[in-house]
Amino acid sequence: MPFVTEIMSVQQLEDYADIIDVVQIGARNMQNFDLLKAAGKINKPVLLKRGMSATIEEFLMASEYILAGGNQQVILCERGIRTFEKYTRNTLDLSAIPVIKRFSHLPVVIDPSHATGDARYVESMSLAAVAAGADGLMIEVHNNPEKAISDGKQSLTPEAFKALMIKVAQIAEITGKMM
Amino acid sequence: MPFVTEIMSVQQLEDYADIIDVVQIGARNMQNFDLLKAAGKINKPVLLKRGMSATIEEFLMASEYILAGGNQQVILCERGIRTFEKYTRNTLDLSAIPVIKRFSHLPVVIDPSHATGDARYVESMSLAAVAAGADGLMIEVHNNPEKAISDGKQSLTPEAFKALMIKVAQIAEITGKMM
Amino acid sequence: MPFVTEIMSVQQLEDYADIIDVVQIGARNMQNFDLLKAAGKINKPVLLKRGMSATIEEFLMASEYILAGGNQQVILCERGIRTFEKYTRNTLDLSAIPVIKRFSHLPVVIDPSHATGDARYVESMSLAAVAAGADGLMIEVHNNPEKAISDGKQSLTPEAFKALMIKVAQIAEITGKMM
Amino acid sequence: MPFVTEIMSVQQLEDYADIIDVVQIGARNMQNFDLLKAAGKINKPVLLKRGMSATIEEFLMASEYILAGGNQQVILCERGIRTFEKYTRNTLDLSAIPVIKRFSHLPVVIDPSHATGDARYVESMSLAAVAAGADGLMIEVHNNPEKAISDGKQSLTPEAFKALMIKVAQIAEITGKMM
Repeated sequence: MPFVTEIMSVQQLEDYADIIDVVQIGARNMQNFDLLKAAGKINKPVLLKRGMSATIEEFLMASEYILAGGNQQVILCERGIRTFEKYTRNTLDLSAIPVIKRFSHLPVVIDPSHATGDARYVESMSLAAVAAGADGLMIEVHNNPEKAISDGKQSLTPEAFKALMIKVAQIAEITGKMM
Repeated sequence: MPFVTEIMSVQQLEDYADIIDVVQIGARNMQNFDLLKAAGKINKPVLLKRGMSATIEEFLMASEYILAGGNQQVILCERGIRTFEKYTRNTLDLSAIPVIKRFSHLPVVIDPSHATGDARYVESMSLAAVAAGADGLMIEVHNNPEKAISDGKQSLTPEAFKALMIKVAQIAEITGKMM
Repeated sequence: MPFVTEIMSVQQLEDYADIIDVVQIGARNMQNFDLLKAAGKINKPVLLKRGMSATIEEFLMASEYILAGGNQQVILCERGIRTFEKYTRNTLDLSAIPVIKRFSHLPVVIDPSHATGDARYVESMSLAAVAAGADGLMIEVHNNPEKAISDGKQSLTPEAFKALMIKVAQIAEITGKMM
Repeated sequence: MPFVTEIMSVQQLEDYADIIDVVQIGARNMQNFDLLKAAGKINKPVLLKRGMSATIEEFLMASEYILAGGNQQVILCERGIRTFEKYTRNTLDLSAIPVIKRFSHLPVVIDPSHATGDARYVESMSLAAVAAGADGLMIEVHNNPEKAISDGKQSLTPEAFKALMIKVAQIAEITGKMM
């Protein structure tokens, strides 16, 4: 089972690239061009998260920094953008999926847990993401969300996660995706 | 087949309420409290569109003006909110669906044509809306989109619409909705 | 001493236009086109407030509805726009002053009390507004801000107001304005 | 006469810190925490620009990364934030001046040229900035703005700049600042 590890600096990338499976570049670092360029030189998949206020064009341009360095294993992750809406932590921009598919061949992964910040909205947003053509989902799961040290509010229980995966598979079949 | 007619003033409502099927209150009038109150006094369904920059809380509070007048036939329509994204006209906020479902019993309809402003994104956003639990869709269709006087760029051909409806029905079955 | 009275509907305008000095149309009604048109038919000054999420272009277009009806006594009021900034209630867009001056002959008034929501920021924003060419200021004053029923947090004491007016006059002299 | 040089990476900082007068960290790098930490270790003034979508709180927190490293010579620069307004490139948030003054002792510099993107608005925004308490201005000047390779549209002529500086000095006197 591969692990995704967030890398926050060029130095960390140099120190840990060999021993991690997937490098995550977080939303705050989406325009850290040094880090993007360094990620272009490694031979590991890079999960690039969209900046909280970045347009899709800026997101795609950030990915070009990695691709231009020679690393073609880039995965784009939409995790919600800043809007004035308050009931959700950020606003999940699912139209990013068909837009990115139009301009790029890169896989698109959706993170409904961080975007909504609320476990009650994760199931419907996960199903919507798959219906819109997402290639993958990042979902927070915790054995006991109420006792989680962090992010408990947005975490699913293992049971809820399993129930969700069944529906995800059904929708993926309709849209012709393998999850 | 019922028609939806946009009403932009109290005067129009008085003149036409009797002869129209469904009254639409547009995004720009979402906080026109006079009009909302007048719509609460009629006995016709009202389709209330979310303001372009309105929070969901403000949207629900606007609907209360109609409900308080005695008209319980209110349909809420999410049609995209203003963000900095440029590839789509507005950003369709599909998380509004589970959020509204949590706080209200009113049906929620999604308008992917206006939200994206681009026919190429309408199919995936429609499927996503249904997967997220939408009760209905408003989709622009035109026999010859390239020759449409207005909104051609966002209109589906009748063929594309039919193909979409088949997939919509399949997803609605999974989420347990009748469309 | 003239009074400004907020009018929220066409009916209120009909009932009270004769007895009030200045009609205020609030930010929420900036695109209430019925009300704008009705305000174009009266012979009283209209203070039109910019919508919380309106562009300057939309603001100017809203004023055209009043002007087109024959009422040329329109005063434009910038009162802050919605942004992601949290230390102030809204973000006072002072660049609206030179922009409006470029496209319109209408006077521009600034409301730093509502925009910032905090009396501690009112003095510097008032001086800035005048330096930028504002034609007037709307400032909340209260004899005892801590005991005010509403808006106390953003109200100046009469003493602070007087001290501010002295500085305002000095800056207005430099920029060639009479306040 | 000291020069400000934008530094975009830790490597650049290591290579050039000795030979430059003032290090500028641009808006895109405001949350490049590696670079901020490295800037905390040098003995040169650092001009930190506010991120295009950053709140003032995030801006102040970014400055803490430099201060915590031991470098107390930090200058904060407001250069406009992203809003929906289109007549100006960004919206200059002048309320950032009194807000920052309340929470921090650091000097605040305003960049009206980048914020507005239009030379016609630079004079009034410069005067407003000084009236609001700014400690400095960054203004683009070009001998022949129409022939400038970049940023001509937002550059003042030397004559316009001199005329502006006279007014700036007058306003600074009123607000008790030395420019």
